Amino acid sequence: MDWTREINEAVQRIAGHIQVTPVMQSQGFGLDFPIEMKLEQLQHTGSFKARGAFNTLLSQDVPSAGLVAASGGNHGAAVGYAAHQLGHKARIYVPEMAGPAKIALIKNTGADLQVVPGAYANAMEQAQAYEQQTGAGQVHAYDAPSTVAGQGSCFAEWQAQGLEADTVIIAVGGGGLIAGAMAWFQGAKKIVAVEPETSCALHMALQAGAPVDVEVSGVAANALGARRIGSICFDLARTQDLTSLTVSDDAITAAQTALWRERRLLVEPAGATALAALTSGAYRPARGEKVAVLLCGGNIAPDPMG
Amino acid sequence: MDWTREINEAVQRIAGHIQVTPVMQSQGFGLDFPIEMKLEQLQHTGSFKARGAFNTLLSQDVPSAGLVAASGGNHGAAVGYAAHQLGHKARIYVPEMAGPAKIALIKNTGADLQVVPGAYANAMEQAQAYEQQTGAGQVHAYDAPSTVAGQGSCFAEWQAQGLEADTVIIAVGGGGLIAGAMAWFQGAKKIVAVEPETSCALHMALQAGAPVDVEVSGVAANALGARRIGSICFDLARTQDLTSLTVSDDAITAAQTALWRERRLLVEPAGATALAALTSGAYRPARGEKVAVLLCGGNIAPDPMG
Repeated sequence: MDWTREINEAVQRIAGHIQVTPVMQSQGFGLDFPIEMKLEQLQHTGSFKARGAFNTLLSQDVPSAGLVAASGGNHGAAVGYAAHQLGHKARIYVPEMAGPAKIALIKNTGADLQVVPGAYANAMEQAQAYEQQTGAGQVHAYDAPSTVAGQGSCFAEWQAQGLEADTVIIAVGGGGLIAGAMAWFQGAKKIVAVEPETSCALHMALQAGAPVDVEVSGVAANALGARRIGSICFDLARTQDLTSLTVSDDAITAAQTALWRERRLLVEPAGATALAALTSGAYRPARGEKVAVLLCGGNIAPDPMG
Repeated sequence: MDWTREINEAVQRIAGHIQVTPVMQSQGFGLDFPIEMKLEQLQHTGSFKARGAFNTLLSQDVPSAGLVAASGGNHGAAVGYAAHQLGHKARIYVPEMAGPAKIALIKNTGADLQVVPGAYANAMEQAQAYEQQTGAGQVHAYDAPSTVAGQGSCFAEWQAQGLEADTVIIAVGGGGLIAGAMAWFQGAKKIVAVEPETSCALHMALQAGAPVDVEVSGVAANALGARRIGSICFDLARTQDLTSLTVSDDAITAAQTALWRERRLLVEPAGATALAALTSGAYRPARGEKVAVLLCGGNIAPDPMG
């Protein structure tokens, strides 16, 4: 796959539909070096997922039966929003564990929402059944080329905004976002993958030498709790010098609190997971190494303006 | 006063002490035109006040008795933070009406905090008495040239970041921030001053032809509830073509909710007051008129990570 071309095409395709998100350089968080940050939690529907959703919907024919997706929350909101903006109907299956704030977020997009008992895998089963029954187009949350190319646009945009870092630190769930980063940078920057200890499908896959099923739980599970890493991500990770590490739930919550207390950036636990690698000391940059952190989601629960 | 020189000097003086805050272009909020926004609520201590505080402390000798300030919250936090960073002691008088979240914000800077029954004017009386007794340096919240020049740095910075708008919309309390805008732009951009109906010292002064005492109340009172507009602001406003208007508390709360719901920007009521002028229709741009909105404070209560 010519990822550079795919991502450049995605950038053109979704321009005007997605929010160009701001970047900043910040000191603080108990660190003795500055960090470049991209505030992707300010994206439409509060996460980077809108990029992949628009790129998917705009790059293929949408069946008359509309669209279907399974989601822990953020992807469903993105598909619901993109479908509404583009005039398609969308059915979204969401597991109960997504919680009321994310369920409300999807509902507010106007999507046909189905809450499923259990976890993400249960919602995915039902989405697949609906796809087979109706011919609706499945929008995969992370393991489809159009999704990965859409998420890759985030890094093309960041580079155009003057990204200087040697190293880009990114949270990982199913791997769509970090696959987009690997696909865009192609080794030109060091990429650090950060997962919760309690939901680390990429870390376990790299140890096992192949994607394996993992248990998922913890504060970031509704965003990062993929039971198995995507194959696109895994294949890219195997061929690149990816650094994979994990952080505790306490470290994630501490980073989330620091982002609000010190910088008035309110993010969900998944959105603070990349920073947690620095603030917990799980990743220590070399002397002079310039680091960047992507804040990827802001759909906190409970809704502070609820 | 050569304001251009004063502000350029302030920019140099406070560089490295303040946060360069990001800017973005955003659609939404029920408006059919895009808005440029500067996210000044991401400044140290959560409001633009850190600019004036650092410029004041760095442009004059600090007495051995240290510093004193009266504040509804944001200025006190800024003075406390700047004093701590520069190695000075600071006593801050805060009125009870500031509320527990802003009182905690000041306390966390390490300042010597004094909570005073009543409103801002009561805190100011005690700050003045302390100044006379001890010789501590008073840091005025809005009506001192060093404060205004510091706040003006926000607009010099925005211009350097590529501000394109014809019109800049700014919330007004005591008038230090908008005085900085008038002092910097010198008529080169249209400036719209927005105050809550329940706290509108500038609006009443312009109607009366002179600063007058006003009653203050409402959702933004602890940030915008100045009883009398600053004389520096008033003198600049009289000589410039300033548009002054007011918005209701409901309009402020609706704008604050929209900023979170649509863009994941969590601001305090004062921080949403400028946008409220657009979303309520109090200010309607002409066809083709490009507008910019400053988000000036993010110290929401209760603390969402509290």
